[in-house]
Amino acid sequence: MNALAQLGMVSDFPSENQTNTVPETEQKDYFVEKDGVRFAGTHLLVDLWGASNLGDPAHIDAALREAALAAGATILHSHFHHFSPNGGVSGVVVLAESHISIHTWPERNFAAVDIFMCGCCNPYESIPVLRAAFTPERVKLGEQRRGLTL
Amino acid sequence: MNALAQLGMVSDFPSENQTNTVPETEQKDYFVEKDGVRFAGTHLLVDLWGASNLGDPAHIDAALREAALAAGATILHSHFHHFSPNGGVSGVVVLAESHISIHTWPERNFAAVDIFMCGCCNPYESIPVLRAAFTPERVKLGEQRRGLTL
Repeated sequence: MNALAQLGMVSDFPSENQTNTVPETEQKDYFVEKDGVRFAGTHLLVDLWGASNLGDPAHIDAALREAALAAGATILHSHFHHFSPNGGVSGVVVLAESHISIHTWPERNFAAVDIFMCGCCNPYESIPVLRAAFTPERVKLGEQRRGLTL
Repeated sequence: MNALAQLGMVSDFPSENQTNTVPETEQKDYFVEKDGVRFAGTHLLVDLWGASNLGDPAHIDAALREAALAAGATILHSHFHHFSPNGGVSGVVVLAESHISIHTWPERNFAAVDIFMCGCCNPYESIPVLRAAFTPERVKLGEQRRGLTL
């Protein structure tokens, strides 16, 4: 842990913290069929500008967990790392339906989030939670349908 | 762990497994300046089609770690989850320079990888490692420069 101690605080919330369970029968992970196409899942790239609360791993962890649940996702694991000296945070929440990640640059009030969800989750439901948690002045949003086929 | 046991095997490789360290002075996380623009980092979205070895968490973990090191990144943490009944794997490697994630659909020989790296790393150096590890017949590659400004 010496190297990590040099880098800053590590917070790692184990999988046992998950608050809901998934029946095994829902773990098929088949592609989504929608709008006449098939794809693996929807991947949102969310850039937050003029944002706040970007240097607090506990706040960020809570926000991403709330964002995951708002989308209907199931949390399996989360891990957050707090860098020094600039106070940026990198972290990820691994979901039964894929993941949410965040990387923050507090010195620029900027955060890069990505939300990848397959199945019946709606990643757009995570956006209001991110807005409330980080109060960005501006949000740049991109959508990719991963594994898109006819 | 009961719910996780229902979902399948969880492999979690703690941060202590990291093989190299980063001097604190390199942890500034400032934006990149290149081609007359500034941005937080390069985010590659990599879809692998006709791929193999997509149901083996240990193989996938090793591949993503090798991919991270090939790009010049520093591994802080990794976590992989093996789903049942279809054998898909979800996982992430958290880096000092951002992250690599993977989600696999073995029943479709498909994997969705994303590689986000800031600073002096070159995420394109990860691609040959992914090709060697998963032998895809086809790779669809997309690049986003996150936090792009003039």
